[in-house]
Amino acid sequence: MRPSGRANDALREVRLTRDYTKHAEGSVLVEFGDTKVLCNASVEVGVPRWLRGQGKGWVTAEYGMLPRATHTRGGREASRGKQGGRTLEIQRLIGRSLRAAVNLKKLGEFTITVDCDVIQADGGTRTASITGACVALIDAIHHMQRTRMIKSDPLKQLVASVSVGIYKGQPVVDLDYAEDSNADTDLNVVMTADGGLIEVQGTAEKAAFSRAEMNTMLDLAEQAGTQLFACQREALGLVE
Amino acid sequence: MRPSGRANDALREVRLTRDYTKHAEGSVLVEFGDTKVLCNASVEVGVPRWLRGQGKGWVTAEYGMLPRATHTRGGREASRGKQGGRTLEIQRLIGRSLRAAVNLKKLGEFTITVDCDVIQADGGTRTASITGACVALIDAIHHMQRTRMIKSDPLKQLVASVSVGIYKGQPVVDLDYAEDSNADTDLNVVMTADGGLIEVQGTAEKAAFSRAEMNTMLDLAEQAGTQLFACQREALGLVE
Amino acid sequence: MRPSGRANDALREVRLTRDYTKHAEGSVLVEFGDTKVLCNASVEVGVPRWLRGQGKGWVTAEYGMLPRATHTRGGREASRGKQGGRTLEIQRLIGRSLRAAVNLKKLGEFTITVDCDVIQADGGTRTASITGACVALIDAIHHMQRTRMIKSDPLKQLVASVSVGIYKGQPVVDLDYAEDSNADTDLNVVMTADGGLIEVQGTAEKAAFSRAEMNTMLDLAEQAGTQLFACQREALGLVE
Amino acid sequence: MRPSGRANDALREVRLTRDYTKHAEGSVLVEFGDTKVLCNASVEVGVPRWLRGQGKGWVTAEYGMLPRATHTRGGREASRGKQGGRTLEIQRLIGRSLRAAVNLKKLGEFTITVDCDVIQADGGTRTASITGACVALIDAIHHMQRTRMIKSDPLKQLVASVSVGIYKGQPVVDLDYAEDSNADTDLNVVMTADGGLIEVQGTAEKAAFSRAEMNTMLDLAEQAGTQLFACQREALGLVE
Amino acid sequence: MRPSGRANDALREVRLTRDYTKHAEGSVLVEFGDTKVLCNASVEVGVPRWLRGQGKGWVTAEYGMLPRATHTRGGREASRGKQGGRTLEIQRLIGRSLRAAVNLKKLGEFTITVDCDVIQADGGTRTASITGACVALIDAIHHMQRTRMIKSDPLKQLVASVSVGIYKGQPVVDLDYAEDSNADTDLNVVMTADGGLIEVQGTAEKAAFSRAEMNTMLDLAEQAGTQLFACQREALGLVE
Amino acid sequence: MRPSGRANDALREVRLTRDYTKHAEGSVLVEFGDTKVLCNASVEVGVPRWLRGQGKGWVTAEYGMLPRATHTRGGREASRGKQGGRTLEIQRLIGRSLRAAVNLKKLGEFTITVDCDVIQADGGTRTASITGACVALIDAIHHMQRTRMIKSDPLKQLVASVSVGIYKGQPVVDLDYAEDSNADTDLNVVMTADGGLIEVQGTAEKAAFSRAEMNTMLDLAEQAGTQLFACQREALGLVE
Repeated sequence: MRPSGRANDALREVRLTRDYTKHAEGSVLVEFGDTKVLCNASVEVGVPRWLRGQGKGWVTAEYGMLPRATHTRGGREASRGKQGGRTLEIQRLIGRSLRAAVNLKKLGEFTITVDCDVIQADGGTRTASITGACVALIDAIHHMQRTRMIKSDPLKQLVASVSVGIYKGQPVVDLDYAEDSNADTDLNVVMTADGGLIEVQGTAEKAAFSRAEMNTMLDLAEQAGTQLFACQREALGLVE
Repeated sequence: MRPSGRANDALREVRLTRDYTKHAEGSVLVEFGDTKVLCNASVEVGVPRWLRGQGKGWVTAEYGMLPRATHTRGGREASRGKQGGRTLEIQRLIGRSLRAAVNLKKLGEFTITVDCDVIQADGGTRTASITGACVALIDAIHHMQRTRMIKSDPLKQLVASVSVGIYKGQPVVDLDYAEDSNADTDLNVVMTADGGLIEVQGTAEKAAFSRAEMNTMLDLAEQAGTQLFACQREALGLVE
Repeated sequence: MRPSGRANDALREVRLTRDYTKHAEGSVLVEFGDTKVLCNASVEVGVPRWLRGQGKGWVTAEYGMLPRATHTRGGREASRGKQGGRTLEIQRLIGRSLRAAVNLKKLGEFTITVDCDVIQADGGTRTASITGACVALIDAIHHMQRTRMIKSDPLKQLVASVSVGIYKGQPVVDLDYAEDSNADTDLNVVMTADGGLIEVQGTAEKAAFSRAEMNTMLDLAEQAGTQLFACQREALGLVE
Repeated sequence: MRPSGRANDALREVRLTRDYTKHAEGSVLVEFGDTKVLCNASVEVGVPRWLRGQGKGWVTAEYGMLPRATHTRGGREASRGKQGGRTLEIQRLIGRSLRAAVNLKKLGEFTITVDCDVIQADGGTRTASITGACVALIDAIHHMQRTRMIKSDPLKQLVASVSVGIYKGQPVVDLDYAEDSNADTDLNVVMTADGGLIEVQGTAEKAAFSRAEMNTMLDLAEQAGTQLFACQREALGLVE
Repeated sequence: MRPSGRANDALREVRLTRDYTKHAEGSVLVEFGDTKVLCNASVEVGVPRWLRGQGKGWVTAEYGMLPRATHTRGGREASRGKQGGRTLEIQRLIGRSLRAAVNLKKLGEFTITVDCDVIQADGGTRTASITGACVALIDAIHHMQRTRMIKSDPLKQLVASVSVGIYKGQPVVDLDYAEDSNADTDLNVVMTADGGLIEVQGTAEKAAFSRAEMNTMLDLAEQAGTQLFACQREALGLVE
Repeated sequence: MRPSGRANDALREVRLTRDYTKHAEGSVLVEFGDTKVLCNASVEVGVPRWLRGQGKGWVTAEYGMLPRATHTRGGREASRGKQGGRTLEIQRLIGRSLRAAVNLKKLGEFTITVDCDVIQADGGTRTASITGACVALIDAIHHMQRTRMIKSDPLKQLVASVSVGIYKGQPVVDLDYAEDSNADTDLNVVMTADGGLIEVQGTAEKAAFSRAEMNTMLDLAEQAGTQLFACQREALGLVE
């Protein structure tokens, strides 16, 4: 039995609230149950130095956690003077995932930065971030089209992400904090709407996992992906 | 005429939403119109090194702005590796203001840190932060009393804050961004519910201001204070 | 009775020594009693990036305290790897105050940086810094005129600063360290020679202060301002 | 055809040279073809603060690349003042992988730090690091046993790692730089000698990958694992 | 002919002003002509961690240059967030030199830190610093004796320092900036009053130097040492 | 008797292995007995900002020590966020020494950076670094000539370095760690092949040293230089 009483293949309630703040070109509050992340996409003219003059755009992400998003207060990274390894690892993952959604050549020499700031954490902040950031990214792209910054459509596909794991010997999807902190294995999967895999990051927290367990977990992730893409399409008002 | 159409002595709508997040001992979303700040108060055992062994507590604050809380994206301080001067100045102001609300001797050797993170900025983030942080602080104190961490009541008084300024020659209260960025003078006032002044920080942005102007501005602040304290009491369910 | 035996409205002896070092375009040692600050104004071609191409100049300040300017040795900020919040707050205050003295459009695309380094601290280092920095700034402007870097006169007015406070229930001016560390209220005032206010920063250190107390303190500051401007004029050899 | 002419399932030549330097308790130069990493395991008394008093040990890793380990010189992280995201990500991966090899309770309150410094890079530095670091770790454990620091054997199992990928549509193992920089997909696998998976990190560099491709890649990794564990056993003089 | 008109073996005027500031246990302004350095010695209870429990004391130094001590303004190290290599090199040199003056065992578990801050630079700041810091150190030791912090006398000997160099083919002593920036060779010598050498740091700025040149320079330094020790003794009121 | 049994004037075995790694334009492993330093010279187009447009090149060095190059593990400087004073001092010394070998005008607007990374330390890492870096520098210059980046020969002369010291009252050359950590005096000498001195850095570790001792040490260094230049020439295949 999962602490939340959910079935092994049941996601937490997923909510995607667009236009959550007023300044960003795309602003989405994503909620996976009690995990709440604000995803703000900002469009800026120009690209990083190493990409200049190639006519291509750039998509990147930054991730942060409010100090008291967690059970006990974590130090403020701005005050400590550096971002921790976990933060950098997650924001690199989000950035790579979002770039898989976009044709950078069609984006032109613009940079879209998606800031994912965790307001409240209850497990799965990186997967919620990717799922919400994709919607914010699309809103930012729509803004660019509406304001004639770009004419073509650089969006290639939707991307979404979910965690799966082995908890008390059972494969489960979308682990909350109570599960995540006691799981044997934790696997984060980033998927495209057409069934492809973008990132698979599995970690044996307690015991090694087998190929068979990995396959079961990927099955669960695939199934969850279908629901997440439906949530994204509904939030965006896309006809399925 | 003010850009918002407000009367010179009219505050924006003030909202104080308690229990905004679930982990913090006190968690308040404060809104002054479109300015939205999440104020999370965390209780921790112990005090800073220089205060140890005196039986006194400590109250401090940290302030941050989400990168896209503003019209254009600001760099993430955690990524730049240091907090800017403005950030440090504001969090020192919030900390001093909150300490004026509390009898540190009655608090015992505990530290309450109030994190004020700006979700959306539209002028007056520091005054909204102080006003909201005071409510979060009180919720944290109540939590300490309920859980028997302390027996006495360390709260001395409510504190609240508002900005006043000279905008196009007129004294106005609670400046939004459109006013703030064009004001001649900007004065932030921190007050106690019994009419005392805790902090007065006035800056001539364009032209020097006179004693007479200062007095008019302080009158406006005093009047606004009455309303802010009423909002705080209502949010806290205190009988007036 | 004040620790120094001064009357409540008596400044410490104020000395402004010009040309204190030989390299800076303006170099002033300012002394408010035992508080000694070296103010060096440097003229550099060009302005910060965000101001380029507008034909305007920039005036800014940096503040530091020698490690043993104080009773006990403070850590060297260069060695700790960052400037503290107090330092940043003070140098921002000095910079804003000096910009009030200058018409930046008439300055042309030059930057004047005034370094205020505290040689010996005995209370009031920020107010002494502003008072001395203004003289160093003027010497730097004169240097620019003499060397034909600029033709017009960008100086708008003199600015000076003094602290006032409530010490043992009495309003007093120009607090030294013995008073400052025990004052109920501390108010730093930056003024222009024609009676205007540039900055007013009041802090209740122990108890809140009233409007009446504030007014008394501002009266004291105004009176002290008259003496400080006379000192500046005398040091500069200006006919009054 | 692979640039190196290797068969799709062929590893580069793997060499593990023990006692490469004289000070470290375990010192191994690992070579995967032209990729050369020096893995030094250091034993220190005590554990990080958060683990103290539990009677458990700690195993961690740090990773670095000499500035000219690569085709063009990379900036020295010590000089830039921070470790990059890639560095932190890799050293966290190595640390987690090594901890899977050890029973921390049997280690006692000691910390083993394995420094993996890349002398020459030609793709696969993280997988070579893990494979070599495991041998250095075992040498350090043997040193602890010989010098009676510990009596029991904290080693649970060997761990080794290899990269697999899709290069020009073909699944290949142990990608060198020429392949790695042009691969469609890159998958790093950390395995235990008994067939378990410790870490699986797959990234779609160009196009999404399918479940079928993932399975083929994992097959290749498993097969390569057999060879790597044989190399480790041979280097350690373990009877198979 | 030297730019200053001095003879090759002539020092600039050396002034040592004791009690220059009021807080430090030893406070000396040292002037070598236009080079002016404030040397403040601070006594603190305790020693660095690595020295604890051995009953020995520690003497160390920190060095800084005010931003406008030089012809053109140098960036403030506190603001840049780190001390430069030159600064660290010089403060390590001063520290080693001062430790040669003191018997650390007789000092007891106290730390004396001498801060050398350059008010005005005109060449030779490190040699002036050492010469002045030695006097400040002795004043701090006397303070410790007067206040009964120590009973014995930890002072072993006076140390002083001077630069010598080859300027336009001529060996010269105590180079000022005009010479230093054009010298072929620069040699800094730290000496003890009984004729011993503590530090010899020679650098060929333009062309290599010969053993013969080195000997001539050391002769000049020795001769200058005699004068510097006389200055120190006179400043300290020591009977020669 | 020296710990190693060497005669007072005997160097450790010196080995210079060229082409030690494959990417750098010059790559030399230098060994002075058990001290092993990898010296990689990198050629980059362009020069530092302050040198641009003068048609001159630049030669610089960076120095690092692998964390476990020493008896006990030292913290990784990249992880601590700054290079220590010793590191900066050594890399400045190496850079200055190498620039003495090269005519920067003939180098053209290229920068050669020599990274000296200590693989294993046993005393004399800075002198071994200079001796090896000179060979790497020459290989990099030859690479530039072969690839027609430059036509003329910017090499002026060979430079090499050795330490000498007073150990147990005896002057000795090329101190290993056992000697270095107990020496009375330590003198590092950088020489040119034609008998000139580039750098002389002597430090009295325990007792002051005399002119006579200094001369004896310099004699030893000169003699050792002859052997080091022979090693360099042999490694480079230069006809003597």
